[in-house]
Amino acid sequence: MTVEINCDMGEAFSIYRCGDDEGLMPLVTLANVACGFHASDPSVMAGTVALAKRHGVKVGAHPSLPDREGFGRREMKMGREELTASVLYQIGALSAFLRAEGMELNHVKPHGSLYGMAARDEEVAGAIADAADVFGVPLMGMAGTVHEKVWGQREAGFLSEYYADLDYRPDGSLIITRVHEPFDPATSAERALRAVTEGVATAVDGTEIPVRADCVCVHSDTPNAVELATAVKAALQPHLT
Amino acid sequence: MTVEINCDMGEAFSIYRCGDDEGLMPLVTLANVACGFHASDPSVMAGTVALAKRHGVKVGAHPSLPDREGFGRREMKMGREELTASVLYQIGALSAFLRAEGMELNHVKPHGSLYGMAARDEEVAGAIADAADVFGVPLMGMAGTVHEKVWGQREAGFLSEYYADLDYRPDGSLIITRVHEPFDPATSAERALRAVTEGVATAVDGTEIPVRADCVCVHSDTPNAVELATAVKAALQPHLT
Amino acid sequence: MTVEINCDMGEAFSIYRCGDDEGLMPLVTLANVACGFHASDPSVMAGTVALAKRHGVKVGAHPSLPDREGFGRREMKMGREELTASVLYQIGALSAFLRAEGMELNHVKPHGSLYGMAARDEEVAGAIADAADVFGVPLMGMAGTVHEKVWGQREAGFLSEYYADLDYRPDGSLIITRVHEPFDPATSAERALRAVTEGVATAVDGTEIPVRADCVCVHSDTPNAVELATAVKAALQPHLT
Amino acid sequence: MTVEINCDMGEAFSIYRCGDDEGLMPLVTLANVACGFHASDPSVMAGTVALAKRHGVKVGAHPSLPDREGFGRREMKMGREELTASVLYQIGALSAFLRAEGMELNHVKPHGSLYGMAARDEEVAGAIADAADVFGVPLMGMAGTVHEKVWGQREAGFLSEYYADLDYRPDGSLIITRVHEPFDPATSAERALRAVTEGVATAVDGTEIPVRADCVCVHSDTPNAVELATAVKAALQPHLT
Repeated sequence: MTVEINCDMGEAFSIYRCGDDEGLMPLVTLANVACGFHASDPSVMAGTVALAKRHGVKVGAHPSLPDREGFGRREMKMGREELTASVLYQIGALSAFLRAEGMELNHVKPHGSLYGMAARDEEVAGAIADAADVFGVPLMGMAGTVHEKVWGQREAGFLSEYYADLDYRPDGSLIITRVHEPFDPATSAERALRAVTEGVATAVDGTEIPVRADCVCVHSDTPNAVELATAVKAALQPHLT
Repeated sequence: MTVEINCDMGEAFSIYRCGDDEGLMPLVTLANVACGFHASDPSVMAGTVALAKRHGVKVGAHPSLPDREGFGRREMKMGREELTASVLYQIGALSAFLRAEGMELNHVKPHGSLYGMAARDEEVAGAIADAADVFGVPLMGMAGTVHEKVWGQREAGFLSEYYADLDYRPDGSLIITRVHEPFDPATSAERALRAVTEGVATAVDGTEIPVRADCVCVHSDTPNAVELATAVKAALQPHLT
Repeated sequence: MTVEINCDMGEAFSIYRCGDDEGLMPLVTLANVACGFHASDPSVMAGTVALAKRHGVKVGAHPSLPDREGFGRREMKMGREELTASVLYQIGALSAFLRAEGMELNHVKPHGSLYGMAARDEEVAGAIADAADVFGVPLMGMAGTVHEKVWGQREAGFLSEYYADLDYRPDGSLIITRVHEPFDPATSAERALRAVTEGVATAVDGTEIPVRADCVCVHSDTPNAVELATAVKAALQPHLT
Repeated sequence: MTVEINCDMGEAFSIYRCGDDEGLMPLVTLANVACGFHASDPSVMAGTVALAKRHGVKVGAHPSLPDREGFGRREMKMGREELTASVLYQIGALSAFLRAEGMELNHVKPHGSLYGMAARDEEVAGAIADAADVFGVPLMGMAGTVHEKVWGQREAGFLSEYYADLDYRPDGSLIITRVHEPFDPATSAERALRAVTEGVATAVDGTEIPVRADCVCVHSDTPNAVELATAVKAALQPHLT
């Protein structure tokens, strides 16, 4: 049994910073790198991929709806082929920076509203998968949702993720807040280890719920992200790839 | 001796059309496909690459300065690494659509002001070449300019182009007009053939000037572009790849 | 009883043309001018407002969701205050070009998906009205929808429009097609006159349905738009403002 | 003799923050508010204008070249009328948020490369002035440059500014660094007072040089901006409007 620790990275833009990528990169095994549609720009992408390479971190694409102003957090209705083309464009752009560093694309994890829409809508999930299939890489998402249903049927497979810095409801759904709150590192690490080794998560009401955790996700905009990722990494060390 | 006929393609955007790509694609051997920074969008790119494939046309990237509003025709000062990243992003995006069609990237030809700046400025030409080198493909431009000086030294080589629908000055420079005028197809075809077979062009004042023509370029926004490309193709037929 | 003829104008962008604004401007009394979010740019706006002035045409703002790539035709979920700010930004931008010509803003008519969403959703309609209220101008839309319900209650009032180049269903709703078909000018003119003078429209099945027509709308992308607008104008001449 | 303290404000964008506008607004008398082309978005503009109103601060427009990715710091070649339209668009957009708050536009101060280009190029300075003239407001810039030469001739007049957090060369030109360094508040305040009351600045080599200071500018991205503005405001208190 092995597990990955993943984090969304490279979400700076222009003069604006976002998240402590320098601090977090040494603590993860997978970086989901923004592709310029909700965040990032070509210079940020080049720098983020180079940073991942220095730390031996594998890189996946983190494509979004085309909505920079809304940081990819506003739902948009797009046609299926239009959406596939939009995601393919972003994956391709990222792949050029990987090629420049002699790296391979590892996976695709959609961002924000695109991730949420794909968890509920088979057309959206299918459109994204059609783009990922061009590169033959797995998609990352939430077990028990349309992510797993659609992406699990694709040849390149599905990577389920457990969120180390979010609370779960008793029905297994995530409590997603606009602004991430600090999360106790010790509790987070302990829960992540149980999710990975026992397939069990503790919901906000204390209920134990089944989870599947190929990867553990830490958000760079959780206020104590570096501290939390450090604790999670230490706990998962024996199981890391 | 073989020659290519190339044309900038896929410069539609959103609901807007631009040029008769359907009419021109059967008449060329190389398509320089816009990458979304001065024109095009992911759906247009997907359609343009599919159209090229149907006609057995090889595809090159046609990257631009990031200036959609100005159609890439407004000069911008960018840092060298920033420019390389910008061009690399665009080439990568296009390469994903080629990958989806089982095609390979053939070359890179910069668009508009980026093309013009690279003809005069070694830093600009070098920045573009650094991006093309990631894909190991040649750059297309004008012989006798910084294009040839910088790109001719790169391993993947340099493709010189002769313009079938523009006039040349006696010093070999091009007379570029904002709006392309109709051009007599017979004259154009005759001149293109001489450029290819004899390395000679006729300037506006009748002077004969030396040219080098690995490719003959036709612009899709020349009013009689299809008629002109038909004549040029007929004349060059024995020399086409 | 007076009526206006209105048309969406100034939807060109960059090098791209859209609609025959020169041909249509002499035939309308109101121009709904695009504000740069789905179409247009500052230069196009300046030119469109100047064209309206030359023909004595009153100008309204034609704001959109922030989606140039989708021409404002992709629904987006925006917060209420965020949407008001987005629309206010666009109205303000247009108002500067009016000020430069010594003109006043006449009305606001939302574009594309924003128009459609506002016909169904009171929050969306209210958000747009909050922006129009800053300028104290009426909103233009469809009678019998949320447009009328929400905008009719605002102090500046509501302008209902009848579509001269679209078919109506027996329930009074519009049959909106992605691409506008040519429409017989004589039929269109006759129907527009009945809509204005009798408040009656003929649905596709021949049923007569009640309509309210403060304005008659012609679309610039209907293939025979100029011919159609000419016929409509001739028929409505006695009732024009 | 009265003086203003001005600061560029509202340069956040999307989820990204920029500068301590909440901390600085009580310390200035004029806010130069970004208009969405290099920074800001409609929601940020609404919030910034409301913040200015709460503190009784007058608002000017801070328009930029259309270059969000480069934060308006990359020079672009635009035609004169195209530039006027671009600036007019931005001033208009801002004016709508002022109108919503019952405020008037106070002045225009161009941002970044547009400011720098206008200091050297009469066409650029003139294009900006043509837009400001539509609103009848003065332009803010550097005495002794093309700013003063061109803008000083316009009816609405010219506002010269002294930089409290930058060093001057003996020839009176500014030493502009990509990243602003902390600046000693006491020195800064003392120099600002001398600039205002005596028209004298101290250059980096100790030379005394003549300056004209209708306004004193503090940058929100100077690391100790709030501390510095506090000291400057205290020193200038008797001379503030």
